[in-house]
Amino acid sequence: MATVPLKDELDIVIPTIRNLDFLEMWRPFFEQYHLIIVQDGDPSKTIKVPDGFDYELYNRNDINKILGPRASCISFKDSACRCFGYMVSKKKYIYTIDDDCFVAKDPSGKDINALEQHIKNLLCPSTPYFFNTLYDPFRDGADFVRGYPFSLREGVSTAVSHGLWLNIPDYDAPTQLVKPLERNTRYVDTVLTIPKGTLFPMCGMNLAFDRDLIGPAMYFGLMGDGQPIGRYDDMWAGWCCKVICDHLGLGIKTGLPYIYHSKASNPFVNLKKEYNGIFWQEEIIPFFQQMNLSKESTTVQKCYVEMAKQVNEKLGKIDPYFVKLSDAMITWIEAWDELNPPAKETTNAASK
Amino acid sequence: MATVPLKDELDIVIPTIRNLDFLEMWRPFFEQYHLIIVQDGDPSKTIKVPDGFDYELYNRNDINKILGPRASCISFKDSACRCFGYMVSKKKYIYTIDDDCFVAKDPSGKDINALEQHIKNLLCPSTPYFFNTLYDPFRDGADFVRGYPFSLREGVSTAVSHGLWLNIPDYDAPTQLVKPLERNTRYVDTVLTIPKGTLFPMCGMNLAFDRDLIGPAMYFGLMGDGQPIGRYDDMWAGWCCKVICDHLGLGIKTGLPYIYHSKASNPFVNLKKEYNGIFWQEEIIPFFQQMNLSKESTTVQKCYVEMAKQVNEKLGKIDPYFVKLSDAMITWIEAWDELNPPAKETTNAASK
Repeated sequence: MATVPLKDELDIVIPTIRNLDFLEMWRPFFEQYHLIIVQDGDPSKTIKVPDGFDYELYNRNDINKILGPRASCISFKDSACRCFGYMVSKKKYIYTIDDDCFVAKDPSGKDINALEQHIKNLLCPSTPYFFNTLYDPFRDGADFVRGYPFSLREGVSTAVSHGLWLNIPDYDAPTQLVKPLERNTRYVDTVLTIPKGTLFPMCGMNLAFDRDLIGPAMYFGLMGDGQPIGRYDDMWAGWCCKVICDHLGLGIKTGLPYIYHSKASNPFVNLKKEYNGIFWQEEIIPFFQQMNLSKESTTVQKCYVEMAKQVNEKLGKIDPYFVKLSDAMITWIEAWDELNPPAKETTNAASK
Repeated sequence: MATVPLKDELDIVIPTIRNLDFLEMWRPFFEQYHLIIVQDGDPSKTIKVPDGFDYELYNRNDINKILGPRASCISFKDSACRCFGYMVSKKKYIYTIDDDCFVAKDPSGKDINALEQHIKNLLCPSTPYFFNTLYDPFRDGADFVRGYPFSLREGVSTAVSHGLWLNIPDYDAPTQLVKPLERNTRYVDTVLTIPKGTLFPMCGMNLAFDRDLIGPAMYFGLMGDGQPIGRYDDMWAGWCCKVICDHLGLGIKTGLPYIYHSKASNPFVNLKKEYNGIFWQEEIIPFFQQMNLSKESTTVQKCYVEMAKQVNEKLGKIDPYFVKLSDAMITWIEAWDELNPPAKETTNAASK
């Protein structure tokens, strides 16, 4: 049904602090695409990219130069810096992947072309208003089951495709500590739409999205250097995106494709980063679950600015960090609009 | 984690109009359990049950004798009659299966013990308040992923386990007509909780539930003989159960186990049965999606009676059938309470 788009329609965004040897394994699948590499940490370090890849690379100095004072909204010493790559891209689709993720194999032993599956997910509609028990009804060999309302079968545009991970699962530090040997070996052959009104933990390791539909909401927050929290960058973006997708009538899919996540990060280091988030998420999630966006918020940008105000008002009471985060959310939108002039403002007209 | 309960805790309910030869294939898995066979159609016909099975059989004359005038709430000439079996059972768990469903094989070629998986599903908690991207966190080799609130990890009691079907998918007549050759060959190795607030099409072919938690809501409606609709019996029960589970804080799981569905029913006959339902579901589903049950409805019975009143008021406008159905819902609860005296009234105390 879906075909992989031409090179001109997708950028691959990779945050990194090291040489990108992992790309060798992805060569057959990535070489035709343009890469946006966001170098984290020391900008004087040289990152080696294997020959034959078409890429642009931004280090901290570049980010500061391009965004000026607004560079404050881009995290440092945290993979949250990747969202700078979403902002400078001019393509319709973004695929972002961590540099410790390798090509996984399907149960038949065949290499999985993760990007191809993401594009299929994004090009097929989502079905957030009613659950289909055979999962994605647009997949070959599946359809809507008996009892699925015909008026809902057209579906809605898919904004986000959330892929999964074999081998090292994406666990928090406490779970890592309790289950150091657990590996994800179960290949679940499905893609499904996260229903409207339901939040999920979005992982940034293996993630694709339609920049035109949801780009300005894909802000990975303030994490890492100088911040009281880390490892919640993708979670934050996921909560914001899901609420905005629900409001604008867009869909988010999760499931296939899998990548192979090679190495668990250090659970002790992770616990230090996550500590505050583990407390705060108990209040943040009800906050997002109960959030109402106004009818006037008809674009992603307008939704995001309205959301930022609510973060200030309601989460600011938890910790001053959220006031800073709220300001950074506004700065992010200003920077986005500056780099992506209003003529290209994201609207949801196409999805209504 | 979960063990299959003793014979004393589960009944298998089978609606049928023919000899139960299909049980031969299920012998290793079913023989230790008690069967409740609900014979549909001509009560003078003899239904043969293979030797060695422990069963009780009810035909229409038995139903009329046991329920008296209240027998009007039990459908005739439609597999909806199966819910009579739920009512006369005294066990905690019910598994119901159609007589054209056979033992399926998993991808390794091993026979699937559907009942064992259903019991696992029912004994493990559900997680309706937040989506877990690795699906059922209570399964071996899986857990809650990073970003899943710790306060929600206890989960809630599981009331319903909805199993799927390989080979002939559960399609409506229009889809059957358009895709006569489609077969479901994809074994999706997962179980997941249907999120709170999301409705789904519940199929009665391969279904298990906790009778103590949700039994009185498992009414399969008025279908078949003398009614303007068929093949919506399980759908109706599914909508009612989901709304009540959401209200009472109970969970519904779908996915594994698979059975092998051997033969597609006639799409022309099905179209005749479904015709009205295809129109009506466009109004019924929004009705259930928007339904609010009052705080006073603290038991399944109270929820169901409140729901019946709303069916009368709001769906009665669509067609007089719904007024009749509303009355039958009340009759069903009266009959349930008569056969299951108030001392055993279902409460949700355990699940709170």
